[in-house]
Amino acid sequence: MIVVSVLYPNGPQARFDIDYYTRTHMPMVQQRLGAPLRRMAVEHGLAGGAPGSPPPFLASGHLYFDSLEAFQGAFAPHAAAIMADIPNYTNPQPVIQIGELRM
Amino acid sequence: MIVVSVLYPNGPQARFDIDYYTRTHMPMVQQRLGAPLRRMAVEHGLAGGAPGSPPPFLASGHLYFDSLEAFQGAFAPHAAAIMADIPNYTNPQPVIQIGELRM
Repeated sequence: MIVVSVLYPNGPQARFDIDYYTRTHMPMVQQRLGAPLRRMAVEHGLAGGAPGSPPPFLASGHLYFDSLEAFQGAFAPHAAAIMADIPNYTNPQPVIQIGELRM
Repeated sequence: MIVVSVLYPNGPQARFDIDYYTRTHMPMVQQRLGAPLRRMAVEHGLAGGAPGSPPPFLASGHLYFDSLEAFQGAFAPHAAAIMADIPNYTNPQPVIQIGELRM
């Protein structure tokens, strides 16, 4: 299984609207990607590893697909609409990680 | 639910032994942390978001707990042993993210 992670870096001017993200953005993503999107997860950043340190990422979203091809096929037709919604909940440029689930 | 993510950054000199990580390191972590560790996941980095780009992280491990206190209580007695094993599979300094699962 393939995981597409969208990580939103923390920073001095960074903002992230977790309510908009979970209530509006991610349901829209789910509706547009349809059945190839097997499941999704959202994490809200709490802390870093060192005591009292801030989280490196304000939040992250994780989208699970059967294969890279399944992701690309589902995402391409909706990429523009999904990306156009990003300024509604955050300002930092997200980091995209595509990985394979091994455990 | 709380997710403790350990992200291993990619880089010119970075190496990561995914077989050692999945077969030796993570089972040892699971055995030491015991029941408070509800589940775990491992991702092996494949690509970044831009076509042909490398993954920002070589791999990541994700540990799920009921609460921050459950993580801290389970991890503290074994932190030294777990961290001493890191050079056996990688050289970059990992990024630690602690987040709350929201979806």
